[in-house]
Amino acid sequence: MSTAGLDGLAERLRVVAGAGNVITDPAELRTYECDGLTYHRATPGIVVLPDGAEQIAEIVKACTAEGVPYIARGSGTGLSGGALPRTDGVLIVTSRMRRILEIDIDDERAVVEPGVINLDVTKAVRSQGYYYAPDPSSQQICSIGGNVAENSGGAHCLKYGFTVNHVLACEVVTPDGEIVEISEAPGYDLLGAFVGSEGTLGITTKITVRLTRLPEKVETLLAAFDTIESAGEAVSAIISAGVVPAAIEMMDALSIEAAEAAVACDYPPGAGAVLVVELDGPAAEVDHQFAQVKELCDAAFEIRVAADDTERALIWRGRKSAFAAVGRISPDYIVQDGVIPRTALPEVLARIDELSGDSGVRVANVFHAGDGNLHPLVLFDDAVPGAAERAEMVSGQILDLCIEHGGSITGEHGVGVDKAKHMPRMFTEEDLDTMQMVRCAFDPAGLCNPGKVYPTPRLCGEVPGRRTGVHPLVESGKADLF
Amino acid sequence: MSTAGLDGLAERLRVVAGAGNVITDPAELRTYECDGLTYHRATPGIVVLPDGAEQIAEIVKACTAEGVPYIARGSGTGLSGGALPRTDGVLIVTSRMRRILEIDIDDERAVVEPGVINLDVTKAVRSQGYYYAPDPSSQQICSIGGNVAENSGGAHCLKYGFTVNHVLACEVVTPDGEIVEISEAPGYDLLGAFVGSEGTLGITTKITVRLTRLPEKVETLLAAFDTIESAGEAVSAIISAGVVPAAIEMMDALSIEAAEAAVACDYPPGAGAVLVVELDGPAAEVDHQFAQVKELCDAAFEIRVAADDTERALIWRGRKSAFAAVGRISPDYIVQDGVIPRTALPEVLARIDELSGDSGVRVANVFHAGDGNLHPLVLFDDAVPGAAERAEMVSGQILDLCIEHGGSITGEHGVGVDKAKHMPRMFTEEDLDTMQMVRCAFDPAGLCNPGKVYPTPRLCGEVPGRRTGVHPLVESGKADLF
Repeated sequence: MSTAGLDGLAERLRVVAGAGNVITDPAELRTYECDGLTYHRATPGIVVLPDGAEQIAEIVKACTAEGVPYIARGSGTGLSGGALPRTDGVLIVTSRMRRILEIDIDDERAVVEPGVINLDVTKAVRSQGYYYAPDPSSQQICSIGGNVAENSGGAHCLKYGFTVNHVLACEVVTPDGEIVEISEAPGYDLLGAFVGSEGTLGITTKITVRLTRLPEKVETLLAAFDTIESAGEAVSAIISAGVVPAAIEMMDALSIEAAEAAVACDYPPGAGAVLVVELDGPAAEVDHQFAQVKELCDAAFEIRVAADDTERALIWRGRKSAFAAVGRISPDYIVQDGVIPRTALPEVLARIDELSGDSGVRVANVFHAGDGNLHPLVLFDDAVPGAAERAEMVSGQILDLCIEHGGSITGEHGVGVDKAKHMPRMFTEEDLDTMQMVRCAFDPAGLCNPGKVYPTPRLCGEVPGRRTGVHPLVESGKADLF
Repeated sequence: MSTAGLDGLAERLRVVAGAGNVITDPAELRTYECDGLTYHRATPGIVVLPDGAEQIAEIVKACTAEGVPYIARGSGTGLSGGALPRTDGVLIVTSRMRRILEIDIDDERAVVEPGVINLDVTKAVRSQGYYYAPDPSSQQICSIGGNVAENSGGAHCLKYGFTVNHVLACEVVTPDGEIVEISEAPGYDLLGAFVGSEGTLGITTKITVRLTRLPEKVETLLAAFDTIESAGEAVSAIISAGVVPAAIEMMDALSIEAAEAAVACDYPPGAGAVLVVELDGPAAEVDHQFAQVKELCDAAFEIRVAADDTERALIWRGRKSAFAAVGRISPDYIVQDGVIPRTALPEVLARIDELSGDSGVRVANVFHAGDGNLHPLVLFDDAVPGAAERAEMVSGQILDLCIEHGGSITGEHGVGVDKAKHMPRMFTEEDLDTMQMVRCAFDPAGLCNPGKVYPTPRLCGEVPGRRTGVHPLVESGKADLF
């Protein structure tokens, strides 16, 4: 459908959501042309800002009737292009749905709308001794709906898990325009499949999240090591000792340099790598384990312990700014996201170093060391001919390394448009077909965030192509209902 | 298909699995006529004992070609009839698949076949300081494959979660006879939907489980209270204090009486209720919190602390024998399984008491108090006309109570054949249709454990009946592939 052909649909959406909440002006539309994956851009055909599940259901039905694809978007901070619009499609933005509908401290849960900002959940319950545990770096701006779509993690997911571990139920508008409840309940637990489905199985309109008690005590240290190997050994020693820190983050020399340039974080000079280790929990446990951690970091040439929340924030400042800070030392960079078994860390880091040396492409390593989630930052200068291609090559080779070591092509940033092409490197055709069966069941028309997650936007009917013979429903004349 | 009509299929299965591993003798078949839900029985048409994924794939393909339903069975200890056979079907028993294929202590995981007994995983890794956390009461005999199908819990799932929290990947034979890997990986996380799908989405042939470190310290106490209310208040106080015990189990006077009669557990006489509270973890934490728990149980008229593992086993003995023990005080009983928000415990227990008083049907209460998972044992004497019906009525009313209080009709025993009829009391038609879409996607022919979990064994084609108009794939002529 041409952009002009969307006029009728826009008219219908104005009736559904109110004229002021439907955007068709080209200049305004351009604000929505990308999410956090900024090198993929497309101006949406229409943007609509609904105010509730019923409006979203009507929007989905209207798009389906016209055969127009639709994509949901929260705050647009995703790093894999899961909310990349289509010029022939409708972008459904949830920024008007920012109500916290219910807080139930006794049962440790809250019910929120999808546009609610992650950190606002914590702000709403902190005075009662609770918080919302998943903490992506973007938590001051990202939305809970987006977190659900991407199954977002964060520095503390080593101990506390990902979004899926903190969502108890979702109200969802399915691609056939029904409003359903998906929860941990008898029958299939579709919550696990829905959380992290990157907007391809429906649009969440209400989320019941688990609230977590604020820990009695928090301890944070920064340990500076001569080499990345000795920092890696400290990580292994801590985990092997049975300590589960709330976070263990590692930064290498290049990322420390970048953070220093950007935010003057004042990390110990000359470090080959630093670890940020945070423990939280009952005071007795934290005290005991923190002493252990300090001992296990004895190869560090300097250990700083945060005396209070201000010093803790200072330690985290360098780590949290690292991605953006890389912009200070390189005009362009790719944020990679891969996972390896923790035990493979030393070998994979050495191989990344070799890849970097061989290609002349600099790679800064920032990562959630405790759970083997790497975020290599592959640096390049787009003004130099061929530099972007070399960076992409190294970036791809790093993913190959992850797969080779039994890991994964994404830890927490999602597949989106960015990594759909890599899926066949991790999965057999049968595995992918099995996943696609679920997509086709939910979205037979293929209009719900098409082109994301899975490599080939095949017609749903072609997916179970390995099945032979006539489908029993065709035989019985009932196929038209499916 | 008549039983006689299965002869050809039996012949084919003998070629696949070996003649000695296909049972068609009526007397032998009868051994498999039920699982732990003993009041539903059906002699299977054929029993086959395969020895690997490839054989299971061939069996599934053979059944599909003949249009014969098939049902997988582990040790047959399930309490909701999930492995109830069909006289016109094939029962696929995994008892020959009992190999532990791999133990990887460094990465804290093991790969096992589905027939492996739950406790055998722990036995295989205990000397290395690890165990497999999910501990259903039947853990000495139940299989990991069955645990996956039912998403089994246990006394310690308050702290450690259910089977789904300890399974990292499953190799699965899908209803179209493909062998696929389902894991926590990019793309849809189907693991959550597969674990607990009660054998309706395929048959697991290999399971990667998470191994958990043995805790540094364990403390267990038995607290005896005058009334169930004061025991309940102690539970609330413990949870509100932020303590997460490994287990908090409650038994009321009637179940204590039964356990006493069966295993002479020697609980304090005259108790209206007892709590078993267990803490585990780092010694410093356990010591600190155990002192807290003892204080919070100050309404108890007696507290016994286990001095060692023998005394711990003694405390657990009464609790673990409770279900079977009820047989000592009543010729027949229904084991009910429901969930309520923990905060609703006092009110629901009082209502159960009223229901029991009004109907004259005795109800013994044994439950995982920490997570609100009730196991009321509804007692009756089948020899008394109308007694079974009254017991079933009270049992159903208890489920209604659970639903009324925002709870669930099953906590850990599954839906199976037993509770399929109750599903519409929890879910809207749209919710059920959404779940059924997944079933139809996986099993369009409806041969994989049919009649379980969902109420009406409708033809898959009828499920999305709310959709109107012609399906786009029909229009495009591709519907025959779906």
